[in-house]
Amino acid sequence: MISQTEYLKARARAVEMMQQAGIALTPAEIEQFEVADFGLSRLDEIGLEIVTYVNTERVCAKELVLFPWQICPEHKHPPVEGRPGKEETFRCRWGEVYLYVDGPASAEFLGRLPEQHGEHLTVRRQIVLRPGDQFTLDPGLWHWFQGGPEGAIVSEFSTHSTDENDIFRDPAIARAPVIEE
Amino acid sequence: MISQTEYLKARARAVEMMQQAGIALTPAEIEQFEVADFGLSRLDEIGLEIVTYVNTERVCAKELVLFPWQICPEHKHPPVEGRPGKEETFRCRWGEVYLYVDGPASAEFLGRLPEQHGEHLTVRRQIVLRPGDQFTLDPGLWHWFQGGPEGAIVSEFSTHSTDENDIFRDPAIARAPVIEE
Repeated sequence: MISQTEYLKARARAVEMMQQAGIALTPAEIEQFEVADFGLSRLDEIGLEIVTYVNTERVCAKELVLFPWQICPEHKHPPVEGRPGKEETFRCRWGEVYLYVDGPASAEFLGRLPEQHGEHLTVRRQIVLRPGDQFTLDPGLWHWFQGGPEGAIVSEFSTHSTDENDIFRDPAIARAPVIEE
Repeated sequence: MISQTEYLKARARAVEMMQQAGIALTPAEIEQFEVADFGLSRLDEIGLEIVTYVNTERVCAKELVLFPWQICPEHKHPPVEGRPGKEETFRCRWGEVYLYVDGPASAEFLGRLPEQHGEHLTVRRQIVLRPGDQFTLDPGLWHWFQGGPEGAIVSEFSTHSTDENDIFRDPAIARAPVIEE
């Protein structure tokens, strides 16, 4: 849960990063900016800031903002209503992002584990994305990712998005954001 | 048909616009930059510069560059192999783009018709896209679009793209680019 004050502060910070990166948003998009703390109430460590540009039955596109060292926790996208799970491509637009997916663990580990929650970050095949770099995740692949020292902005191109169906490694996680009034 | 020299010149110009807009490309993406003259050999008037980020069976994302007043000619995306036609969202990232789609003609017309080819630009419902603005086109909708006075950069988020299936209003158009050696 995050307070209204935390929400507004995080949103202002994310919008500033977008402006720095030269990414234009409409006033309505800024108004609807999503700040997800995944129910863990440690937004600076575990969280994600999201603008959803479009999400039809067939196509979804979002811009994701990660603050420095902020982590989007480990999850996967299962099949929904008989359709294959969400397929997504992450393209780094600004900053640096460390993406971890299921597979042989990389020798190098550039991420920073938080004081709590590290046991739920299990996959360790590391893919480093710098501006212009991208990676496509097949449906069902476990993954988590972390912003680098300056944070990151990442475009996500995907099939239809149903966040509420995501499966998280940490059973304490609730995907739908709760903002305290 | 465009010459190798024209191709390189158009590519350099498009890459410069992308850099101006702060959009990062990898060396491989610059190398593979597509310059489409639609077989009309009047690239400055009728043409499009394209980087395809991803095009899987389910999802496609591209960055489109339009030079000042350059036109992507009228076309639509029919069903392919029993699947609905391509659904696409255009999001203006930089500059200004005039998008024309099938529907009641708008009172205002901001575009500029070229000396030739105007008879093949028939739909006149005008949608003006400035940075942050976007529009989603249902499959099968006739459309064409034109860069404004400074040109435009447009993100396209869509289902699988099969350019060779596009239907153009002008029967003289060949979508596959031909570069003269």
